[in-house]
Amino acid sequence: MAGEDVFDVVVIGAGPVGENVAGRVVRGGLTAAVVEERLAGGECAYYACVPSKALLRPVELAADVGRMPGLELRGPIDAPAVLARRDKTVSHLDDRGQVSWIEGLPATFVRGRGRLAGPLHVEVTAPDGIRSLRARHAVVIATGSDPLVPGVPGLLEARPWTNREATSVQQVPKRLVVIGGGPVGCEMSQALHSLGAHETTVLVRGDRLLTRTEPFAGGLLAASLQESGIDVRFGRSTTEVRRPVPDGPVTVRTDDGATVEADEILVATGRRPAVRELGLDTVGLPADRPIEVDADMRATGVPWLYAVGDVNGRNLLTHMGKYQARVCGDVIVARATGTPDDRPDLRDTADDQGAPQVIFTDPQICAVGRTESQARADGFNVRAVEYDMGEVTGAYLRGEHYTGRAKMVVDEDRRVLVGVTFAGPGVVDLLHSATIAVVGEVPLDRLWHAVPAFPTVSEIWLRLLEEYGL
Amino acid sequence: MAGEDVFDVVVIGAGPVGENVAGRVVRGGLTAAVVEERLAGGECAYYACVPSKALLRPVELAADVGRMPGLELRGPIDAPAVLARRDKTVSHLDDRGQVSWIEGLPATFVRGRGRLAGPLHVEVTAPDGIRSLRARHAVVIATGSDPLVPGVPGLLEARPWTNREATSVQQVPKRLVVIGGGPVGCEMSQALHSLGAHETTVLVRGDRLLTRTEPFAGGLLAASLQESGIDVRFGRSTTEVRRPVPDGPVTVRTDDGATVEADEILVATGRRPAVRELGLDTVGLPADRPIEVDADMRATGVPWLYAVGDVNGRNLLTHMGKYQARVCGDVIVARATGTPDDRPDLRDTADDQGAPQVIFTDPQICAVGRTESQARADGFNVRAVEYDMGEVTGAYLRGEHYTGRAKMVVDEDRRVLVGVTFAGPGVVDLLHSATIAVVGEVPLDRLWHAVPAFPTVSEIWLRLLEEYGL
Repeated sequence: MAGEDVFDVVVIGAGPVGENVAGRVVRGGLTAAVVEERLAGGECAYYACVPSKALLRPVELAADVGRMPGLELRGPIDAPAVLARRDKTVSHLDDRGQVSWIEGLPATFVRGRGRLAGPLHVEVTAPDGIRSLRARHAVVIATGSDPLVPGVPGLLEARPWTNREATSVQQVPKRLVVIGGGPVGCEMSQALHSLGAHETTVLVRGDRLLTRTEPFAGGLLAASLQESGIDVRFGRSTTEVRRPVPDGPVTVRTDDGATVEADEILVATGRRPAVRELGLDTVGLPADRPIEVDADMRATGVPWLYAVGDVNGRNLLTHMGKYQARVCGDVIVARATGTPDDRPDLRDTADDQGAPQVIFTDPQICAVGRTESQARADGFNVRAVEYDMGEVTGAYLRGEHYTGRAKMVVDEDRRVLVGVTFAGPGVVDLLHSATIAVVGEVPLDRLWHAVPAFPTVSEIWLRLLEEYGL
Repeated sequence: MAGEDVFDVVVIGAGPVGENVAGRVVRGGLTAAVVEERLAGGECAYYACVPSKALLRPVELAADVGRMPGLELRGPIDAPAVLARRDKTVSHLDDRGQVSWIEGLPATFVRGRGRLAGPLHVEVTAPDGIRSLRARHAVVIATGSDPLVPGVPGLLEARPWTNREATSVQQVPKRLVVIGGGPVGCEMSQALHSLGAHETTVLVRGDRLLTRTEPFAGGLLAASLQESGIDVRFGRSTTEVRRPVPDGPVTVRTDDGATVEADEILVATGRRPAVRELGLDTVGLPADRPIEVDADMRATGVPWLYAVGDVNGRNLLTHMGKYQARVCGDVIVARATGTPDDRPDLRDTADDQGAPQVIFTDPQICAVGRTESQARADGFNVRAVEYDMGEVTGAYLRGEHYTGRAKMVVDEDRRVLVGVTFAGPGVVDLLHSATIAVVGEVPLDRLWHAVPAFPTVSEIWLRLLEEYGL
């Protein structure tokens, strides 16, 4: 065991969130060590957001071409070419670039499994031994989350795919069963179906997809998946999974007694914060729950400990984790340097206002803030209006048969937006207009003067405001 | 001559702007007549924004496909199919749908050429005679603009194309000369080149394209045009045009003595407000200039006359005209009904803040507010930052070799944005985020909490704010 190394800040986890904390604290003049057991860059860069979008973008484009007279694809999507590009986007699972980025901050990269070993103390277990790190000011946990595999008989034994195997697929299975109708289940069923999983079945426990978004969003997406030939079954829970022969077919039984046989099974039923074996008990915290934090990202009751990203359970979204990282890094700097630590930029307000979320399917689904029902449940005096996006000239010009819908949720007391949802082809970059409107609390009467350019899809804004009565 | 018909409001011009005025005043309980000599729906719907985008969208998509491994087009763009879809988007130049829309408001549609004939009096000349209309409250001029053809020797005689002939092209010429490097020249040269005008030459008087936007935007676009094989010549004015044989080739001579021969010549050197023969002199206004209006769209000095859209010369953009129409219609209603006429929604503030503008080329160029140099000239205490859009993960995931650039112009005294420019593939619907930020005067410190979703192109916002120092 080497001697103890001392840093101003020790970050456990080198995903985008941990990297951002390190970047901010080093920028503020502090020293930092970043500890990572697996790949620097994190789940997002190798097994989630990035590769899934690399798989989905060709699907989106192919759908766009299908809607545009005068263009025709030579044939189906060339899956090997798409997988090769996917490999490039994940740097062939090589994290040297990310490690260099961290070292270039400069910060110290420590490969190994980090765990807390008492106040301001982190123990790193690496193949070549245990290393002890001490933090002068703060320890930051940014270990992310792991896929949750439900306790269905036979499921674990069937070695199901999670987002990791699905996004790093090398040979697309011909027959695929997907358990779960959330973002990962929807994105990966559409991507893999388009790349060759011709028999794709999605088992959804409830009566719709994407239960956290406005109901019409899941409805439009379900129609799109079904139209492309994906078998989406609602109200079905999985009762048993069998894979008698390793690498052989898998049989999935649902609660209506039906069975589906497939080559692979993908579990997409959620994630849980990666807190196990972190040594949380050594500092008096529960060892098996998300690390509760205050708005400054500090673990409630432990003044030197911070937790950012999925591990605090606030919003399991990369961009929200990175946002929290900026808050966290800056507040640590403020406290370490004795400058005021209560500036507005040192508090996480965005998570409460409702994180933006984007689902890169065709149609794309994106939303920020609260749904109408969430807003009502939260006590807002709500009025909501909807509009058919296909009726906007800019949408029609994007292609034939453009189908989409938008909704805005207004807090009538303040006449500001508390939620906006867009569903339709090519809407993901329209979302940030809504995010600025919601977070900026721009009054409706001022939004009325923000003129959308003609003929863009953005004119949906004009239609929504007119529908509201402006 | 029929007897005199009386309406609360008489609108001359049934383009989108005139239509919107009628829609607003009728909604407010007034009666309206809309006079149009040509097609109801206006230049925009038949000969400008709409058909040009119908021609450009396939070009954009084909470029996107070219940047995406795994997708390949069967061949070049099928021009006849694109032209057929263009015909559909312009309703085959049949305005019955638009007339029905106006009549359904309900409002009275009057086909003919309208001109002022003294206070509150409009005379309409139609093939079947002259009709006299009287307005109780207001006359609104919304006659738009006409293409400007410069006085180059031989040019008029060569029957040059303007936006009308270019957007309604039935047979794409093999060789095309375009005079002008503004939005129309850029859009139509790229569209027609992609649809078969293999020899396309663009003559630009100055040293760059799109002189009203940030310099890098025109630079990126010029590189794209040139790379596709379009011959863009800067610093060239046209000295003589000859077309000795009608329907024969046209020869264009430039001030360096060079000549270009082509099958058609497109003039895209600007537009002038359509005020001629409007009878402005009958109400004491100059007959040959844009109609000067106050912020309530009322003609300066003529209390019952309003002018909206291109004809007032504020911003020759359809969406700004429609915006002015909403202001104008509502203020007329307020005055006619004796309700307060000084509410914030009854004043045009957006034109002064800087209209959003979108150019649908590949790369797309869009901007809102002021450029850095405009902002400095207007006396703002400016700081500007730029960022390479290709460096954003979301941009890279859209395709290989994504090239783009963004810039934001900050008013340092108030720490709000006064201008934003995006240049890159697929950015047009990102613009509205900037429009809301500029018009909403959302402080930078609040924009910092508007988190862009990962991995979208919208993360350019994060990069720009970081670059600024947040």
